[in-house]
Amino acid sequence: MLTTVFSSLDEFCEILAAFPAPDMASRDAAKARDAVLTKPPGALGRLEDIAIWYAGWRAKPAPQITNPQALVFAGNHGVVAQGVSAFPAEVTAQMVMNFEHGGAAINQLCKIAGAKLTVHALDLDQPTQDFTSAPAMSEPELVSALATGWNAVDSSADLLIAGEMGIGNTTSAAAICTALYGGEAEDWVGRGTGVDDAGLAQKADVVSRAIALHGDALADPMQVLRCLGGRELAAIAGAVARARHERIPVILDGFICSAAVATLAASQPGALDHCIAGHVSAEAAHANLLKELGKQPLLTLAMRLGEGSGAAVAINIVKAALACHSGMSTFDQAGVSDG
Amino acid sequence: MLTTVFSSLDEFCEILAAFPAPDMASRDAAKARDAVLTKPPGALGRLEDIAIWYAGWRAKPAPQITNPQALVFAGNHGVVAQGVSAFPAEVTAQMVMNFEHGGAAINQLCKIAGAKLTVHALDLDQPTQDFTSAPAMSEPELVSALATGWNAVDSSADLLIAGEMGIGNTTSAAAICTALYGGEAEDWVGRGTGVDDAGLAQKADVVSRAIALHGDALADPMQVLRCLGGRELAAIAGAVARARHERIPVILDGFICSAAVATLAASQPGALDHCIAGHVSAEAAHANLLKELGKQPLLTLAMRLGEGSGAAVAINIVKAALACHSGMSTFDQAGVSDG
Repeated sequence: MLTTVFSSLDEFCEILAAFPAPDMASRDAAKARDAVLTKPPGALGRLEDIAIWYAGWRAKPAPQITNPQALVFAGNHGVVAQGVSAFPAEVTAQMVMNFEHGGAAINQLCKIAGAKLTVHALDLDQPTQDFTSAPAMSEPELVSALATGWNAVDSSADLLIAGEMGIGNTTSAAAICTALYGGEAEDWVGRGTGVDDAGLAQKADVVSRAIALHGDALADPMQVLRCLGGRELAAIAGAVARARHERIPVILDGFICSAAVATLAASQPGALDHCIAGHVSAEAAHANLLKELGKQPLLTLAMRLGEGSGAAVAINIVKAALACHSGMSTFDQAGVSDG
Repeated sequence: MLTTVFSSLDEFCEILAAFPAPDMASRDAAKARDAVLTKPPGALGRLEDIAIWYAGWRAKPAPQITNPQALVFAGNHGVVAQGVSAFPAEVTAQMVMNFEHGGAAINQLCKIAGAKLTVHALDLDQPTQDFTSAPAMSEPELVSALATGWNAVDSSADLLIAGEMGIGNTTSAAAICTALYGGEAEDWVGRGTGVDDAGLAQKADVVSRAIALHGDALADPMQVLRCLGGRELAAIAGAVARARHERIPVILDGFICSAAVATLAASQPGALDHCIAGHVSAEAAHANLLKELGKQPLLTLAMRLGEGSGAAVAINIVKAALACHSGMSTFDQAGVSDG
């Protein structure tokens, strides 16, 4: 593990501003290779786009994926006091145990995808502040959570997913989206793990009050993350930033993961160019959030579990894309007429 | 390998009529298990539906997928004399060599999915008749191709995909769809491996002439397959029928695979209940064909390669679904509060 390379929010933002670009020569070489593989041009559809995109970030014309990493961050939210979730807060810690014992969906999905999974619980006994009455985190707390994410990334990984567990965190994500993109709270709240109509109205009210409370502070995307985020959301942002720093491509998970990293995109244009959207979830606002981020999801399976589950399923698609790109014969090699 | 259990088209149709149903007790048990797994109800979306569907066909409440089989059937088409493809007919045999040497997309995709791949070339030096002037196959030729598919299935497989290679076969598939579902030839033809506008118009003309020529014979779906199909399409139909006979769930591939098995569905209602659609291809008519079949695709990746490639990518999704269903802990096992 690296030691953290930032110790303040300003230093973290300096890293964002210095993000590396993909290697254009490798991307061009991948494009040229794609054109002579034994298939009609474009016949692998999005798999071809993914392979070329990935090659640029890995700076190799024909890379394979052999070491995908999956991170799950867990945090507790003061805002659950407002009755925004169908599940009690203790489920966060119970699910962390379930992850550690291998019993959750993400454990099974990582096995299928060949991804190494680690789980990072962030101060579960210290929920964030209820953001309807105070900023969720202090600046040192935010920096610490960002650093947890940053340090959790294995620099030898060649693909990253970052998931979350945190009772109450769809409300946090909805608040972040409302702060970043505007619109009504109603546009961004959803049923999460399964609240009823009254619960949904309550979530919208909570988000509206939070936006009013924090006011001008929300003009700065990193302050949005601090005031409205959770520790696990900040950790996701830190991990995705580290992945960019290391040129490790990322598959984004659902609504909460996307909201967490939207703060990076709002801070620094292009900050998510190394990310693709693994899926669009059944949480209603996720499709709109992906539009704001300019990301087209790979999968539409009506999943809404979090944990990184949608991204984990998508790992298989990205692996398939690179297996074709880097493993197929060319027309010349195979002695096939190219039309 | 089994010896074929039918030696005439009538005997094949008798097998269709005696197709087994899924095991409802296992399906119900799977549904009950799904309800107590450590996730909010329905949070795995379509993965849950797939797992329950699969459990019914395998007659086990919590099955895993350990032995997926991939078949690729290749055939040549007399109708290529009409100039319907962007590639010359010899590419069919060249691609069979490529499959055998491991250089094609399907080879890489089967490796990622852990599927055992075999390739079956059907009399490549004996193209079917040009169906604008005669039935593509005689009845013995059709029965022989169905039997090749039937016999290619490994009865110990627990998931099957069946792909194809055959220059000219999108025209055959379009003709089959026009015969089965009506509409204009223009509604069902597409660009295949990449014909231009003139090629597209030529395909539509070829299909229209074929429909006019074969006339009343096309009222019988098995005669549709004989008059307009190719050997590889018939082999796919035979393999998918065998899978049903053995209660092996099937992931359908793209337009050609779907058209091939549409003849089974038209012969025998419910004949494809053991099948799901792996993807919707970029071949324009595939989406409409899936609507006719009542199948919602798992993936939308703008693929249009054939070979079973879309279905092979989807194997990973189905494996993921079963891994979750059969590997996750229940609320009780994990000590997680269920809301």
